[in-house]
Amino acid sequence: MPAKVKTKSTIFNDPIYGFISIPFDIIQTLIEHKYFQRLRRIKQLGLTHLVYPGAYHTRFQHAMGAMHLTGLAIEVLRSKGNNISTEEAKAVSIAILLHDIGHGPFSHALEKSLVSNVNHEDLSGIFMESLNQQYKGKLTLAIKIFKNKYRKKFLHQLVASQLDMDRLDYLNRDSFFAGVSEGVISSDRIIKMLNIKNDQLVVDAKGIYSIEKFLIARRLMYWQVYLHKTVVSAELLLVKILKRAKYLYGKNKDLFATPSLEFFLRNQVDKSSFEKNKSILDEFANLDDYDLLSAIKVWCNHEDKILSSLCNKLVHRKLNKVEIQGERFKKAHIEKIKKAVIKKLKISPKDVHYYVYSDVISNKTYNPNDDKINVLYKDGSLVDVAKASDHLNISVLSRTTKKYYLCYPKM
Amino acid sequence: MPAKVKTKSTIFNDPIYGFISIPFDIIQTLIEHKYFQRLRRIKQLGLTHLVYPGAYHTRFQHAMGAMHLTGLAIEVLRSKGNNISTEEAKAVSIAILLHDIGHGPFSHALEKSLVSNVNHEDLSGIFMESLNQQYKGKLTLAIKIFKNKYRKKFLHQLVASQLDMDRLDYLNRDSFFAGVSEGVISSDRIIKMLNIKNDQLVVDAKGIYSIEKFLIARRLMYWQVYLHKTVVSAELLLVKILKRAKYLYGKNKDLFATPSLEFFLRNQVDKSSFEKNKSILDEFANLDDYDLLSAIKVWCNHEDKILSSLCNKLVHRKLNKVEIQGERFKKAHIEKIKKAVIKKLKISPKDVHYYVYSDVISNKTYNPNDDKINVLYKDGSLVDVAKASDHLNISVLSRTTKKYYLCYPKM
Amino acid sequence: MPAKVKTKSTIFNDPIYGFISIPFDIIQTLIEHKYFQRLRRIKQLGLTHLVYPGAYHTRFQHAMGAMHLTGLAIEVLRSKGNNISTEEAKAVSIAILLHDIGHGPFSHALEKSLVSNVNHEDLSGIFMESLNQQYKGKLTLAIKIFKNKYRKKFLHQLVASQLDMDRLDYLNRDSFFAGVSEGVISSDRIIKMLNIKNDQLVVDAKGIYSIEKFLIARRLMYWQVYLHKTVVSAELLLVKILKRAKYLYGKNKDLFATPSLEFFLRNQVDKSSFEKNKSILDEFANLDDYDLLSAIKVWCNHEDKILSSLCNKLVHRKLNKVEIQGERFKKAHIEKIKKAVIKKLKISPKDVHYYVYSDVISNKTYNPNDDKINVLYKDGSLVDVAKASDHLNISVLSRTTKKYYLCYPKM
Amino acid sequence: MPAKVKTKSTIFNDPIYGFISIPFDIIQTLIEHKYFQRLRRIKQLGLTHLVYPGAYHTRFQHAMGAMHLTGLAIEVLRSKGNNISTEEAKAVSIAILLHDIGHGPFSHALEKSLVSNVNHEDLSGIFMESLNQQYKGKLTLAIKIFKNKYRKKFLHQLVASQLDMDRLDYLNRDSFFAGVSEGVISSDRIIKMLNIKNDQLVVDAKGIYSIEKFLIARRLMYWQVYLHKTVVSAELLLVKILKRAKYLYGKNKDLFATPSLEFFLRNQVDKSSFEKNKSILDEFANLDDYDLLSAIKVWCNHEDKILSSLCNKLVHRKLNKVEIQGERFKKAHIEKIKKAVIKKLKISPKDVHYYVYSDVISNKTYNPNDDKINVLYKDGSLVDVAKASDHLNISVLSRTTKKYYLCYPKM
Repeated sequence: MPAKVKTKSTIFNDPIYGFISIPFDIIQTLIEHKYFQRLRRIKQLGLTHLVYPGAYHTRFQHAMGAMHLTGLAIEVLRSKGNNISTEEAKAVSIAILLHDIGHGPFSHALEKSLVSNVNHEDLSGIFMESLNQQYKGKLTLAIKIFKNKYRKKFLHQLVASQLDMDRLDYLNRDSFFAGVSEGVISSDRIIKMLNIKNDQLVVDAKGIYSIEKFLIARRLMYWQVYLHKTVVSAELLLVKILKRAKYLYGKNKDLFATPSLEFFLRNQVDKSSFEKNKSILDEFANLDDYDLLSAIKVWCNHEDKILSSLCNKLVHRKLNKVEIQGERFKKAHIEKIKKAVIKKLKISPKDVHYYVYSDVISNKTYNPNDDKINVLYKDGSLVDVAKASDHLNISVLSRTTKKYYLCYPKM
Repeated sequence: MPAKVKTKSTIFNDPIYGFISIPFDIIQTLIEHKYFQRLRRIKQLGLTHLVYPGAYHTRFQHAMGAMHLTGLAIEVLRSKGNNISTEEAKAVSIAILLHDIGHGPFSHALEKSLVSNVNHEDLSGIFMESLNQQYKGKLTLAIKIFKNKYRKKFLHQLVASQLDMDRLDYLNRDSFFAGVSEGVISSDRIIKMLNIKNDQLVVDAKGIYSIEKFLIARRLMYWQVYLHKTVVSAELLLVKILKRAKYLYGKNKDLFATPSLEFFLRNQVDKSSFEKNKSILDEFANLDDYDLLSAIKVWCNHEDKILSSLCNKLVHRKLNKVEIQGERFKKAHIEKIKKAVIKKLKISPKDVHYYVYSDVISNKTYNPNDDKINVLYKDGSLVDVAKASDHLNISVLSRTTKKYYLCYPKM
Repeated sequence: MPAKVKTKSTIFNDPIYGFISIPFDIIQTLIEHKYFQRLRRIKQLGLTHLVYPGAYHTRFQHAMGAMHLTGLAIEVLRSKGNNISTEEAKAVSIAILLHDIGHGPFSHALEKSLVSNVNHEDLSGIFMESLNQQYKGKLTLAIKIFKNKYRKKFLHQLVASQLDMDRLDYLNRDSFFAGVSEGVISSDRIIKMLNIKNDQLVVDAKGIYSIEKFLIARRLMYWQVYLHKTVVSAELLLVKILKRAKYLYGKNKDLFATPSLEFFLRNQVDKSSFEKNKSILDEFANLDDYDLLSAIKVWCNHEDKILSSLCNKLVHRKLNKVEIQGERFKKAHIEKIKKAVIKKLKISPKDVHYYVYSDVISNKTYNPNDDKINVLYKDGSLVDVAKASDHLNISVLSRTTKKYYLCYPKM
Repeated sequence: MPAKVKTKSTIFNDPIYGFISIPFDIIQTLIEHKYFQRLRRIKQLGLTHLVYPGAYHTRFQHAMGAMHLTGLAIEVLRSKGNNISTEEAKAVSIAILLHDIGHGPFSHALEKSLVSNVNHEDLSGIFMESLNQQYKGKLTLAIKIFKNKYRKKFLHQLVASQLDMDRLDYLNRDSFFAGVSEGVISSDRIIKMLNIKNDQLVVDAKGIYSIEKFLIARRLMYWQVYLHKTVVSAELLLVKILKRAKYLYGKNKDLFATPSLEFFLRNQVDKSSFEKNKSILDEFANLDDYDLLSAIKVWCNHEDKILSSLCNKLVHRKLNKVEIQGERFKKAHIEKIKKAVIKKLKISPKDVHYYVYSDVISNKTYNPNDDKINVLYKDGSLVDVAKASDHLNISVLSRTTKKYYLCYPKM
């Protein structure tokens, strides 16, 4: 049963914004719900702290920060004469607060191993529906906005677009905690420049340089932090660990795990499972960083050599070597490495994929086919930022950058 | 077997100091050791993040930061003509890097429940001795300095005194992550003012105001963060949980736990145990936040109602109410609350201590009987900061402030 | 004639607060008035930049900053249920914007040389009256608040009290520009803790540590910056220069000066002069740092050796030596120095006071006889901060610290 | 005669870097010289504070900051095995300290009005030669480096190149004081990435994203601050004022001015004048912001209506309207405005150029034909940053952006 509402005046300390106030009672209620409290136990950046030790912050903090920025944005938009009702403000605040609630622990790795065909956005939607039932429809408008089914589209854009409050917070927060000052953006300045035109979230022309810097900062964070080769390598290692564990469960091997983790190791769970069986959501809601890491630590001593060796690498940070380049790796190069590894580790060729693996990651700084970022000029005209800027040209910005990763044990 | 030494030029990103360089190969080696890597999984401030969500940083970060500041201090002291050899610099860097390595997860709670008669400082010493064996005596001088047995006393003072690099880093770091800007100190300024006189670490007279502000900031962090009533209440709750779990183990009840946690629940471990049985140190080194939290989450559904109810309070953040005051609570007041709780929760009077408990906490801003903080005047004279300052007077500073806490369920 | 009102949405960039918005049209109008624009040419800290090169900021910036904080305070107070009408908000914003408009260039020196018996607060009042006439009574309520004649006393306290927006801004601003980080306070936090009780501006109990740190920071800025011995020495030198110039004018010597500066050198101006002759205010409004410095630079080559030697000291920063101590200097000590200076500089004993001079400066961190800073507890009770804090005790805080300065040429 | 050398341990407070130490006695001596002290009276950004009130900082601060960064760069370069002797370190520190000493007040305006055919770089060279004579050759190596005549070219690149310490400091400093956070760069990070290869200053490959952000920040500062239309308009207005004053002097009209300003109003001074007549340098060294502003304030009441009206605009900030666009303004448009102004102000057509004027300003973010910024890869290869980055492409970066300005009175 949901907690009782009361603490209208709660204030949270935040290292980035100083103070975060809770604007509505329902927000406080949702924060106190165990579905949300669980975000305190899920790190925002998974294993990134293995490279940037400060990046140990949680999804709880990010959700609070994005909600805070949304409040500021609403204030700015209203001050420029745009109408946003209290109900709409409340709904968009709920939507942003819960936009990431569907994230599991080490989300990217999890989605490639423990669950299938379901991503964190689907799950956020499922969580919201469940909460909406518990709170008797109080989240209906928030869900509409989240799913972009509400008539005022700009409200959805505050939650999810190329200039949403999600990105504004996570860029600042992640760069702050990682200690990568190049990623810092002036969320304050950008928000002051927001406006609405034709039911779209746009940027006043004065803010164009801030948007440029925001795009550059975002790109920089991608390559310097989110897709840092050692981070990618650690996450791929985690996928291998979970896949091996699942494989061993399939073989009826005994593995230490919390009941919730065991559930996901033992069963095939996909989107439809969540829809068919309501209790699976509660199992999922029980899962956090602590389930995974505590099990992996125990598995360091498991009798299965593959599992234990992979776990030791992760826990004691003996990570794989990573090559990174702009083109696909030559097959011959990969084969040569695999052979060497098979020989060195005395493993079967069919298991070499646990030790030698590659991935390709692509990223686009700005996608002009998506919701554009539009710049509003004093004469009322709107121009796509990629055209408005005298520097950023669309061909450069919209080019997809691809990087190929090849990981294998140091030998 | 220790890792191979190499990465002389490793640089760590740090949100507070920007970059932290590794000054000596042995430091890099120690950082890579699993005893040290484990600090990545132990939060610096235990459960404080339940009140200050940003305070999720780790002991790993703090150890690195304190080492960084020590490097700066050495540079300043040398520039003022004080002689510090490379060997001494290396040793004091090792000593500060490892000064907190003996901390277990949620250290304060742990020392009151899972182990007895052994504190984290003893354990840091035991860890260092073990590492010294592994690295064939390379830590001998560091250990001497840590234990204040080296002839140059000021080196020990950099590691442990009322003006050590430990405090300088933790005040800054904890206030930074907690988002409590009043705790921020100018470590940079204080370090620039350090000097040595009569083999004591002292402060040049110019720095007196910075020292004052440092003392005030420290006091503020104590009452506002470290001894925040809700934080204290959460930590006492954790003690109760671990005591109940240990009690149930004693009764041969089945409890989910990682093997390492189980070891400490099942056995009575004190300082002499570590000395007698070397393998206990490895069990301890295996223990971190993940063992405790993952077990407590599972215990939320344990059949023992006391255990499960306490665990639910902690995990879902339904914390106890706390009263705090300057004098001891009246017995009658406590009894009245206990009775009400017994009735409300339908528990036996002998178990009420799990729900209603009190504590007293005292703190002193500056202890003039300890190693004083001495101010060095241009004429070469030394004066205790408490007398040197025209504002801070010794009676105020050295007064012990006591606070009484009384915790019980919201009813 | 006053400028036309329009730019409702003007935004100023501020290094400290990011953006400062103009809340009312009348504020924009007043900012554009030449009386206010002139504050762009008056440095906030006079000659302090000779010691802290960054402290070159202007009174214009401070007035804008204090107005900004007042806006935040109004918002917080209203959110706690205190009633402040739009007219009151406007009036208090005007009052704080103009609270320092009466400052002349190098105000403290000026008040001891070019004018007499009139201080900057009197002049601020006179400026406001003049502006009120120009704007047909629009400043009437602001003036009432400024002079503490309005029934809601707390509005005056926002403008002038021991916890006013003036201090909050200048402490932050001066420490920021001087690069003295110990003076930085969390204006944001303090403002969030403001409240009103019994028509008094008070601080919620939670904010007590912030207030302590504010008082300590203020004290620190006094001794480290405002009353820094070299700053005091430079300001006393400026007084001597202006007195000598005035003396030479009296002797009908020819001195380079802008017409406005000449006016004040030639005439005796006191408070009553401003009241009798309205045009004197315009002469005064014409005077800024540029009049004084440009003249002093020219006087470096004046035939009067005393004047030129003093000016050279100031312009080329060959400042006097300063002794500073807690007790009055011994007469014999001063006489000895004077004799040496007379001999060395070959000057007449009657002129030695231009070269050798002393001063005494006293400061109190907190004055409990003034408007107290009161702390508001949850039970509604009010306690003086000096008693509420378990650390700061009234005897220490309210003690007046006196310092004696003795300045003379390096020999 | 130069001041006596002594204060080896002087420390300057700096709002940006905290503390700036003086690395060599000769640096302290040069700082105390009146040629350098004068930089305390010259604002770094001229009239920019009329738009960004915080941008009131001085060339003194910038010179100190650039010297500080040079010291850090030397330390980093040495730590990477590059050889820099003490004499070279001293010389490059002198060169950067004095690199801007040739700036006059409101330099850009001055070079278009009071002097001709001589820019601040020429004058910096002339100042250095003069100081070298005074200090008996102690600046010889510094001058060689400044003029790029020393065999180690990378030393010159620290002082003047597309990645010099000048730019690193001024971008940070100007954005800091202007309150334009988008201009902030991580000078610390960039400096840590500096290296030397083939006698060139290069950037380690890891630093490529920091360089990108540096280039974007620089571009942003150009358009948002340095070439802000209102700033440009104010500077052009100042040119007009000085030209009118010079014209009136030519007509033997009486104008208030300090002797030094009068000298430049009365005489035609160009590069050869400085070379022929040594005393002109001292006149120039006497000139600062105070001479110009004090005169302009007096000229507000001059009988020449053109002069007085222009001065009033500047002093009381009644600035011209500015149009800005990417192409040349149509002649017809300009003529129409001129006609309207002639009619409105009742002036002669030959004087309309004082009120209606245009300018064209172009800027290039990165010039690949200059000294390139080269990126050093681990294999030892060097690649131009414009090619190394997967985002910045040379065509975009090296494109010259041109903006046309048209200024005229608000009507």
